[in-house]
Amino acid sequence: DAVKPSAYGASTAGKPLDIISLDRLDTAVQEVIPEAGYQFVSGAAGDEWTLRENRRAFDDFRIEPKRLRGVSSDVDLSIDLLGQTLPFPIFTAPMGAHGMVHEEAEVATARGTGMAGTLYCSSGASHRTLEEIAEATQGPKWFQLYWNNDIEVTKSLLKRAKDAGYSAIVLTADALGPGMPDDFKAMGAPFRQDMVFGNHDPERGGSGNFFDQKVDLDLDAIKFIKDQTGLPVVVKGLLRGDDADRCIGAGADAIQVSNHGGRQIDGVPASIAALPDVAHAVNGRVPVILDSGVRRGIDVIRALAMGANAVAVGRPVMYGLGLGGAQGVQSVLEHLGQDLRSAMLLTGAAKLSDLDPSYINLVGPSAEANRS
Amino acid sequence: DAVKPSAYGASTAGKPLDIISLDRLDTAVQEVIPEAGYQFVSGAAGDEWTLRENRRAFDDFRIEPKRLRGVSSDVDLSIDLLGQTLPFPIFTAPMGAHGMVHEEAEVATARGTGMAGTLYCSSGASHRTLEEIAEATQGPKWFQLYWNNDIEVTKSLLKRAKDAGYSAIVLTADALGPGMPDDFKAMGAPFRQDMVFGNHDPERGGSGNFFDQKVDLDLDAIKFIKDQTGLPVVVKGLLRGDDADRCIGAGADAIQVSNHGGRQIDGVPASIAALPDVAHAVNGRVPVILDSGVRRGIDVIRALAMGANAVAVGRPVMYGLGLGGAQGVQSVLEHLGQDLRSAMLLTGAAKLSDLDPSYINLVGPSAEANRS
Amino acid sequence: DAVKPSAYGASTAGKPLDIISLDRLDTAVQEVIPEAGYQFVSGAAGDEWTLRENRRAFDDFRIEPKRLRGVSSDVDLSIDLLGQTLPFPIFTAPMGAHGMVHEEAEVATARGTGMAGTLYCSSGASHRTLEEIAEATQGPKWFQLYWNNDIEVTKSLLKRAKDAGYSAIVLTADALGPGMPDDFKAMGAPFRQDMVFGNHDPERGGSGNFFDQKVDLDLDAIKFIKDQTGLPVVVKGLLRGDDADRCIGAGADAIQVSNHGGRQIDGVPASIAALPDVAHAVNGRVPVILDSGVRRGIDVIRALAMGANAVAVGRPVMYGLGLGGAQGVQSVLEHLGQDLRSAMLLTGAAKLSDLDPSYINLVGPSAEANRS
Amino acid sequence: DAVKPSAYGASTAGKPLDIISLDRLDTAVQEVIPEAGYQFVSGAAGDEWTLRENRRAFDDFRIEPKRLRGVSSDVDLSIDLLGQTLPFPIFTAPMGAHGMVHEEAEVATARGTGMAGTLYCSSGASHRTLEEIAEATQGPKWFQLYWNNDIEVTKSLLKRAKDAGYSAIVLTADALGPGMPDDFKAMGAPFRQDMVFGNHDPERGGSGNFFDQKVDLDLDAIKFIKDQTGLPVVVKGLLRGDDADRCIGAGADAIQVSNHGGRQIDGVPASIAALPDVAHAVNGRVPVILDSGVRRGIDVIRALAMGANAVAVGRPVMYGLGLGGAQGVQSVLEHLGQDLRSAMLLTGAAKLSDLDPSYINLVGPSAEANRS
Repeated sequence: DAVKPSAYGASTAGKPLDIISLDRLDTAVQEVIPEAGYQFVSGAAGDEWTLRENRRAFDDFRIEPKRLRGVSSDVDLSIDLLGQTLPFPIFTAPMGAHGMVHEEAEVATARGTGMAGTLYCSSGASHRTLEEIAEATQGPKWFQLYWNNDIEVTKSLLKRAKDAGYSAIVLTADALGPGMPDDFKAMGAPFRQDMVFGNHDPERGGSGNFFDQKVDLDLDAIKFIKDQTGLPVVVKGLLRGDDADRCIGAGADAIQVSNHGGRQIDGVPASIAALPDVAHAVNGRVPVILDSGVRRGIDVIRALAMGANAVAVGRPVMYGLGLGGAQGVQSVLEHLGQDLRSAMLLTGAAKLSDLDPSYINLVGPSAEANRS
Repeated sequence: DAVKPSAYGASTAGKPLDIISLDRLDTAVQEVIPEAGYQFVSGAAGDEWTLRENRRAFDDFRIEPKRLRGVSSDVDLSIDLLGQTLPFPIFTAPMGAHGMVHEEAEVATARGTGMAGTLYCSSGASHRTLEEIAEATQGPKWFQLYWNNDIEVTKSLLKRAKDAGYSAIVLTADALGPGMPDDFKAMGAPFRQDMVFGNHDPERGGSGNFFDQKVDLDLDAIKFIKDQTGLPVVVKGLLRGDDADRCIGAGADAIQVSNHGGRQIDGVPASIAALPDVAHAVNGRVPVILDSGVRRGIDVIRALAMGANAVAVGRPVMYGLGLGGAQGVQSVLEHLGQDLRSAMLLTGAAKLSDLDPSYINLVGPSAEANRS
Repeated sequence: DAVKPSAYGASTAGKPLDIISLDRLDTAVQEVIPEAGYQFVSGAAGDEWTLRENRRAFDDFRIEPKRLRGVSSDVDLSIDLLGQTLPFPIFTAPMGAHGMVHEEAEVATARGTGMAGTLYCSSGASHRTLEEIAEATQGPKWFQLYWNNDIEVTKSLLKRAKDAGYSAIVLTADALGPGMPDDFKAMGAPFRQDMVFGNHDPERGGSGNFFDQKVDLDLDAIKFIKDQTGLPVVVKGLLRGDDADRCIGAGADAIQVSNHGGRQIDGVPASIAALPDVAHAVNGRVPVILDSGVRRGIDVIRALAMGANAVAVGRPVMYGLGLGGAQGVQSVLEHLGQDLRSAMLLTGAAKLSDLDPSYINLVGPSAEANRS
Repeated sequence: DAVKPSAYGASTAGKPLDIISLDRLDTAVQEVIPEAGYQFVSGAAGDEWTLRENRRAFDDFRIEPKRLRGVSSDVDLSIDLLGQTLPFPIFTAPMGAHGMVHEEAEVATARGTGMAGTLYCSSGASHRTLEEIAEATQGPKWFQLYWNNDIEVTKSLLKRAKDAGYSAIVLTADALGPGMPDDFKAMGAPFRQDMVFGNHDPERGGSGNFFDQKVDLDLDAIKFIKDQTGLPVVVKGLLRGDDADRCIGAGADAIQVSNHGGRQIDGVPASIAALPDVAHAVNGRVPVILDSGVRRGIDVIRALAMGANAVAVGRPVMYGLGLGGAQGVQSVLEHLGQDLRSAMLLTGAAKLSDLDPSYINLVGPSAEANRS
């Protein structure tokens, strides 16, 4: 792809990043992408209490490192996730409308994720088509479905995803609204006018109206997707143990603990605070994934110690996209992998499977929330 | 009413508002109303700890949304409250002296509330007369009584309220002082000199001195009002379960949990923090209403899940009045109703009666305060 | 006294104050007294954690007001304290070196306290002599002793105090250092050079070196004072129930819970946080007094509800002294008395003896600290 | 040593300091040392949560002073630590690369520590050689080892340390990475180019590559050091009781509770928060030392009351070095000793061995973390 600037003015960058910390990308990216894109990506619902809590709650999970255990720095960080091998338990969370950040949109994000060798989860709200995105990455890929009220549109999306090589379908259970931050709303919700939702673009093989989404989904959706595709189903957006249990009973192959980065509803717990209850309910029957707030290797440690098998990362990947295109995305994911490697050594864990609650001293509101 | 500017300079606005969030009205209104009006309305007693706590404590009530439950977005939000139907469980709290904000004063607030189809609770400390206010709204209306030491004045107020069509009397149990914020006091308490308390204005059929209020009220007041009017009595301003129980025993038809927006005494708990104890004591015998701090749909969810039947809203309605007159008031109430609708969907509650404590994970000081 | 300005430049004000809140005096006084005086009075030990905690901890004591109890506003606030009648349970705490604030020094503070009709506790570290101070007030008075290593000096102080009409001796158990805030130290500890400790001034009948204080006091000190003077002994500066118990066993006639306004040692609990444990140990055997942090009527309510019989107030009295001399002191004490009256009404307590822990919902660190 | 300025521009100061508090040195030192040195010393890992928590957590340990116990101010503060007598239970923690702060580097720090009569713990990452450092101090000294992958280098370091008169070896169990703050990394990690790690400098009798450190150490390291040197071994960097127990079982002669000043891994508990669990596990079998966050005499009190025998101090010593060279270091240590003396008196403890948990009311997250 040749990357050309648009009237909107998203980033056209393409370069590897020298990353100090993912937090610092937040400031840096504001200088290279339009304010609209930044507000759309960085903001969250309501007063953004959940957005802040997604970070704060990690502090409740105090790491109690084990010392003089003969732990070396060449830990094998790779995992198997629903049949796919990832180089580290970190992948790209589904996010919509990457064109708000970079002119190449999801094609660059997917390519960069593949360059890092890890999983790309393609949002149903992408600017580019799922086929273009699938082609862009050499790595594993999942497709996240927004269920359309027109069942033929939904079936078509599922068929296209399977045909394009996606290996699992992510059923997002919490994306029931526009996910629009107040600051973005206050700007007049200035979405790009020159990009549409690729998967629904008649000129690119799509159909249906993206916004005509079914909100009153129930557990039957899981079986329907499995029947249509034969693929494993990941249910994303759960914050309760009983919901996880119900979904597994209905056939879910993995559970993703998520509050959608705080973008859908404010006032719900941090994902990490909800993890212990969910992990306890899942009890190892299926993999557990966590997103919303992961920024450091120590955050991955905390999530894995409390029962997650992998974590997904959103906003930092978008900032990497803005600052460096596909190479920036690769830099972000590899930086976090490397940071996890250091954190393993400093935590005194020789392999991922060693991580368990004995490494964590849980205090504060997150401890209180998980007392029965 | 033709709205004319005064020497005082209150707002004369009359227009619908495009509302991002009720919190943002606080800043906007400061540009269109006199400083005196803003300080009078926005401030609270003492160090304003309770004022801040009225907002903070909602964060202790973490919403744990239920997913894939087949919840649709066309929830019926209407409720029946003491025989009146409201389009949503949200109404206008009694507040005095609207002329500090808008030249039309309570007539505009009542009209706007009626335009939104919901309940207007008329304060005994209104600038306009209760009859003018009653006439201004097409919706249901309650009258809030300040008990006068001259029992004939009190009787007259009750009779006038009944005659004007008010369908319930609100006995405010906590308004025992002037409710004057320190910042307003520091300005010299600059009330309008060109407006008096309408209900006591001899020129408009009133009598008595508004300030000659009886403070040593007891439970007998409830029966007295019922005898005089035959109307249901709402006791407003309770923060204790035992007080609610006593009032119901004395004939109260509804209980309003309130700390008067923090305006009367500082250092008392947030209303939402007091709700669980009160709801437990009431145990469904009469409706429970909550005010003080409600700003978002998720706040209504929290209150209803913990046992409230409806919420009343104060300052945001005043800011809507300042920014848009009657239409501004309508915008505020309808915005909050719409925000509740979204919040129901995102919480995974199909109808209001589904809301119960299983949706809430209560932590922090509010949890501690409700442990017996 | 004619009040003349000095080279040091302390206040010479003499006027009643129109007080919005005692907190606001802190800002106002900075404009009328030398920086040295302000830093000396306002600061505290170390990082001033205890100073801040003295205020914050009151918020842990949430007032749960009782409603519709027939409480009127003409509450009798007077108390009897060791045989003296006070118009309200509030008096002036012992503080040294008032000349840092006002040219009349303690003579004005004592006179103002007497004009308010309440108790003046004279610090052993006064600039004026205990006799001058005794003469200045029409009200009750206590003398606070700094025990001198020269036992004859100590005996002389006790005899002079008795002769001058002081009705109790306060044994300060926690003033073991200079009580010098870091900011004041950083200024070079600029005490006035033109004023000395009056009680030790040979020209005014004094003897001994004020700084030659005995620090290794033990319980025998209580009996010694009683033997020398026949007066009741108040032990001030306790934060532990077991210390209170020991002191009562050794003859103490009252216990003053105090951390010396945070001036002696940082990192100790707020006085109000220590009160429940001390009150439980005292169990009504002797009166309990609390100082350190009282600024509002609601603070007095909290202290009395948790077992105090009276409160002492320090810095606000000094700020009243700076802003208005004797009349300023009177204004401060009467303002707080009036604020207590309003708080009683709003709390729903008909008389001081009604106040008990049923009015308080104790949460947070102060609750945690008082769990056994 | 003649101290000459370098192109780098570290401090050449040599003077005693008039210290108000150790916290204030942080600001002062920024004016006399290069930004690189300040960022390197003052910063910590990640978001610096642990760095902040190292200070905040001390507030959870509330001192409950005992009064009227006959405690005098001439307390004997001296201790015996592994056969060495210190004038107070405070010594200099091992820190690397003092040339980032002062041109004399560790020679000045060691000399100043010796002038204060207390223990200097020499970091393996010193700019000067261990022999130069040993010669510089008249006081006791320990050597902290970074274990080299080349076992001959490790053996050589141990032999040289013993030959130079170091009386114990500190095995740092937590220094597994570069300990580089994000802000310093963001500057490009501008270490001095004109100074190397002295102990590995071939021109000064050294060998090996400092950075070739063994990370997968286990308990055998303890016995190895003892066999090589016959000296006692201090294991530094533990935060868990079970680790302390394991190390004592493997022959450790002392345990140093430390999170390396927050420099290695963020998100781990404050040292003081980890102390109760470790002290309980050690149960008096060997001395316990605490570092990370000690700034005041009251902090020493808290650590000793909860089971520590001594504390080590890092950054303030470095700031003393920058501001005053050897004499500045002496000032820092003596100031803290003097501050401890005052704190003992104000706490009501007659001797160090009186300090026990009865002086502490433990609340907040540190209390929660130590509940089993």
